[in-house]
Amino acid sequence: MAILNNEHIAYLKNIVGSNFIFIDEESLNNYATDQTEKLNFKPEVVLKPSTTKEIAAIMQYCNQHLIPVTPRGAGTGVSGGALPHLGGVLLSTEHMNNIIEIDENNLQVITEPGVITEVLMNAVKEKGLYYPPDPSSKGSCFIGGNIAENSGGPRAVKYGVVKDYVLNLEVVLPTGEVIWTGANVLKNATGYNLTQLIVGSEGTLGIVTKIVLKLIPLPKYDLLMLVPFKNLTHASEAVSAIFKAGFTPSALELIEIDALKIVSKMVDNQLIPVTDDIAAHLIIETDGNNLEVMMNEMETISELLTQYDIGEIFFADDNNQKETLWKLRRRAAEAVKIEGYTIEEDTVVPRAALPQLIKGVKLLGQQYNFKAVCYGHAGDGNIHVRINHPTIKNSHGNKEMTQILRALFTLVKDLGGTISAEHGIGLIQKPYMDIVFDKVNLRLMQSVKKVFDPNNILNAGKIFDTE
Amino acid sequence: MAILNNEHIAYLKNIVGSNFIFIDEESLNNYATDQTEKLNFKPEVVLKPSTTKEIAAIMQYCNQHLIPVTPRGAGTGVSGGALPHLGGVLLSTEHMNNIIEIDENNLQVITEPGVITEVLMNAVKEKGLYYPPDPSSKGSCFIGGNIAENSGGPRAVKYGVVKDYVLNLEVVLPTGEVIWTGANVLKNATGYNLTQLIVGSEGTLGIVTKIVLKLIPLPKYDLLMLVPFKNLTHASEAVSAIFKAGFTPSALELIEIDALKIVSKMVDNQLIPVTDDIAAHLIIETDGNNLEVMMNEMETISELLTQYDIGEIFFADDNNQKETLWKLRRRAAEAVKIEGYTIEEDTVVPRAALPQLIKGVKLLGQQYNFKAVCYGHAGDGNIHVRINHPTIKNSHGNKEMTQILRALFTLVKDLGGTISAEHGIGLIQKPYMDIVFDKVNLRLMQSVKKVFDPNNILNAGKIFDTE
Repeated sequence: MAILNNEHIAYLKNIVGSNFIFIDEESLNNYATDQTEKLNFKPEVVLKPSTTKEIAAIMQYCNQHLIPVTPRGAGTGVSGGALPHLGGVLLSTEHMNNIIEIDENNLQVITEPGVITEVLMNAVKEKGLYYPPDPSSKGSCFIGGNIAENSGGPRAVKYGVVKDYVLNLEVVLPTGEVIWTGANVLKNATGYNLTQLIVGSEGTLGIVTKIVLKLIPLPKYDLLMLVPFKNLTHASEAVSAIFKAGFTPSALELIEIDALKIVSKMVDNQLIPVTDDIAAHLIIETDGNNLEVMMNEMETISELLTQYDIGEIFFADDNNQKETLWKLRRRAAEAVKIEGYTIEEDTVVPRAALPQLIKGVKLLGQQYNFKAVCYGHAGDGNIHVRINHPTIKNSHGNKEMTQILRALFTLVKDLGGTISAEHGIGLIQKPYMDIVFDKVNLRLMQSVKKVFDPNNILNAGKIFDTE
Repeated sequence: MAILNNEHIAYLKNIVGSNFIFIDEESLNNYATDQTEKLNFKPEVVLKPSTTKEIAAIMQYCNQHLIPVTPRGAGTGVSGGALPHLGGVLLSTEHMNNIIEIDENNLQVITEPGVITEVLMNAVKEKGLYYPPDPSSKGSCFIGGNIAENSGGPRAVKYGVVKDYVLNLEVVLPTGEVIWTGANVLKNATGYNLTQLIVGSEGTLGIVTKIVLKLIPLPKYDLLMLVPFKNLTHASEAVSAIFKAGFTPSALELIEIDALKIVSKMVDNQLIPVTDDIAAHLIIETDGNNLEVMMNEMETISELLTQYDIGEIFFADDNNQKETLWKLRRRAAEAVKIEGYTIEEDTVVPRAALPQLIKGVKLLGQQYNFKAVCYGHAGDGNIHVRINHPTIKNSHGNKEMTQILRALFTLVKDLGGTISAEHGIGLIQKPYMDIVFDKVNLRLMQSVKKVFDPNNILNAGKIFDTE
């Protein structure tokens, strides 16, 4: 069922040059997986173009010859969006890794998609500027993938997600045509918002080749504390209480004790006692330019939290301690996965519904006989639920797990939430889209897909079925 | 060329009830204009439905019978988006004016579209919450219209525009089908962002019937100062300097002296001397919860501005003075219009290009023999350019003015900007869309329109031509 023949390969080689086309087994295998459970789909060819022009030529050719193309950033996705499940061309953006311009006069950066998010963050930081959206994978993920998934991260609670920073995009359409979606301006009421249509479209509408991002002044200071709760429900209730009291922390993360126990095996944790009387921790960060104001804020939040049954609050004293705390949180996903919690869901509900969501998760675990551990961006109502099932380690196509996840997502929907906050739908959440969208919504999305990709060649069959 | 017959009218009367359908001349004339220059297009019937169900029934019927429908909020638009230029049905949302729920636990509000923006702002303010986007027309415009145009206003510079607050929308499609575009959550990576596609689509893709908005804690204090500049270029250069120094004011407005002179005739201005050595003022506001920090900020900004040739800075002492300053700014458009500056453009460029934009505007005035006055949201790079031409008072369809505006928008485009920041395209900017978008962009937008509105009945012919 190969789609590509020698003629195709020769033509594509001519576009990217012989050093940037790969058909050897090892290369194909390297691009057959991402961070999504245990899925494996081998492409027929891997292309690593370096310019918009090359990508346009590839798309034009593939469109004409009906060759499936799957775009890929760093392969850190967890919903299977970058997996070439139909074979064909895997188009990696890894060689488009230039930061084109940091515009200090306008507080903007223009970048190619293959730049590692943290590299971009550090480059603008050197100029006293800040690009806040920092997914847990920031050290390895690409900014282009962040655009595709509309990524979040811990700072979203104060600063918003990727979509809130994207001003303008250069996009190669599935037809090979190239557009700029908007303008490099802070406000735009000129036609439909194609920029926001591309953000979060998971590489199904076009391949982003240049990105213009808004930046903000870098806050001078940040303070971090960790608050242990003896009761998980209390911890989730406290989240809302902090916002109701008028605070907007720069991060408000929850980590359940089981996750902390597991990640403590991986990260050297001399800081936080992991004791059995604690059910969960909140990690609370504030940032700003005035340390006194921030100290006061932290104190008032601490006082507010004494109404709950909490343990001793831990204030991070220095950057080392902060880094350790963040490492414990950021590496939780990786750690619990190794421990058998292989299925991760990216639930999100209105913030005040968090206690009901977490209770519901635990009840489902009892009912369906699995262990679940919760952690994530509690301030946004966004909790990653990791499932450790005694026998099922991969949700994709498994009947019983599908039933469990339908129950979970129905709960999420009933609480006013949805099935993905920042990971996207890709392949593995696709079977659950009908829970949160009715047929009319899906028809609209499918038709928009067709407008952009009439021949259905670009990342087809992701998010929803396409003919 | 009437489209509606007695049978149509009878059917529509049956949907909304006989008290909410109007065919008398006076009513039709009342809905024939908005705030856009001198355009006048009479509808054949005005409907004032009260529920989503009624709107769905109207759309279903009109879709079936190919009757043009023009949705309308408060009629404060300045691009002609709410004008029934094809006759048919004018659908006013004025009776859908309930604030459904202020959710203090989640910092959200659910509202109908016909609520006046300021009424909504005040209602959430009473709960200690803040909905920041406040267009100059906030005392009369509807929140639904704000969604349609993706409105901005002075606070956008710190807090963002309407799109940054919209979480979820109930929308009646042109077919009469009803969807919710998203979920009531702060982060959403579940399918294409239909919410953001509707925001700013100027009532061409659907009629918004319920709106879920994110709120933030209300800042406790604000400080306001007015800085007179002897040189217009300096004033526009100073704007960038403030942001480059790391400040994000909650408002940073520019008003040229000619506009201030004119508006001072209308608003009782005992505060600000209007002298001939001043070319323009910057209005600078900071807000927050710590007065001392804010005072320091204002002082540092003031010091920074002494590098320019400025007059004496005026600090507003109390709420009365603040209100007067804001009135002078907010009523500028109305005042200069009366004075003959009838044509308003909504230019936006990257902030640092403001000096070039303003110089360019003045040069065009010399070249084409018109007076131009500039004011607006300088912090966003968004300047309203008002044109007083000795003979031409209405751009729509006028050849010479079209030539002038093409020159203006070409300048804007060359500076990296676009033709509307917050007013929308509607009817009157439509002839200039080709300056900022190529054919591929326009084809995509037109095709998306067709996906939502296959029979081309809802606000057809706005933004771009539709068949």
